Amino acid sequence: MAESQLAPERRTLRRFDGDFAWDGVETLVYKEEGEAPFSKITRQLLHSDSGLDCELRFFDIEAGGHSTLERHQHVHAVMILHGEGECLVGDEVYQISPHDLVTVPAMEWHQFKANAGAGLGFLCMVNRERDRPQLPSESELVQLRKYAQVASFLDS
Amino acid sequence: MAESQLAPERRTLRRFDGDFAWDGVETLVYKEEGEAPFSKITRQLLHSDSGLDCELRFFDIEAGGHSTLERHQHVHAVMILHGEGECLVGDEVYQISPHDLVTVPAMEWHQFKANAGAGLGFLCMVNRERDRPQLPSESELVQLRKYAQVASFLDS
Repeated sequence: MAESQLAPERRTLRRFDGDFAWDGVETLVYKEEGEAPFSKITRQLLHSDSGLDCELRFFDIEAGGHSTLERHQHVHAVMILHGEGECLVGDEVYQISPHDLVTVPAMEWHQFKANAGAGLGFLCMVNRERDRPQLPSESELVQLRKYAQVASFLDS
Repeated sequence: MAESQLAPERRTLRRFDGDFAWDGVETLVYKEEGEAPFSKITRQLLHSDSGLDCELRFFDIEAGGHSTLERHQHVHAVMILHGEGECLVGDEVYQISPHDLVTVPAMEWHQFKANAGAGLGFLCMVNRERDRPQLPSESELVQLRKYAQVASFLDS
């Protein structure tokens, strides 16, 4: 079948539109409403193929927004694509800028925040088959807040 | 262990240096000399982890250079990161620009060329376990050259 007859999401080339959207890539809700706390964040599935054992997603956070604070067995392999912000991984907080690489190991608490006055967009590679995220309990949050920089990040 | 005591390649955050190199990421030869025809291209392994079923690599081609013309069972999931150029996938040639997405299906001939007067850098996600690439035979090259735009690409 000629490339031009394929649905955009099946095409070999999917063009970037200049504003972090792509031909044939739908902008999705980040998670189901009420499932977990998050703010001002969208999800796009850039690469997902039955022949690939991982997916490549793009998450876009508006200034002031954040991903869910969570942990899981599966590893996140991240590259920042645009903007500025911070991420929590374990009990450390990192300032992040375009093209920085972040690895989130299994079962480490993590969260990404666009808390630097700008948006924050990042690629995230994950295994196709993966476990569901866990949210922190009240006592786990108390434990995390014992680290001053973590408390400051959670309140930012 | 404190993050600062880890070897750079084991750290949670590996910073981008502004010129398509990263802390703790080694710049590697693209392939072994003489193994396959290629030109002016390097390889960096950005994300590779025993907990991940794929790897994320970065290939950087100087102006005038190219990757190997090859095919294999494993799928390539590509995002252009900088520069301009063209890629061949199957019997089609595509102009590529930053953040465009390219999918190379199983067993399609493909090649990336920095043939637009600039360098070309791209991310490529692949399965960790994958087959070895095949090079085209003389008769397969003759077959590919029957498409005018492919012949023009191969000579560019």
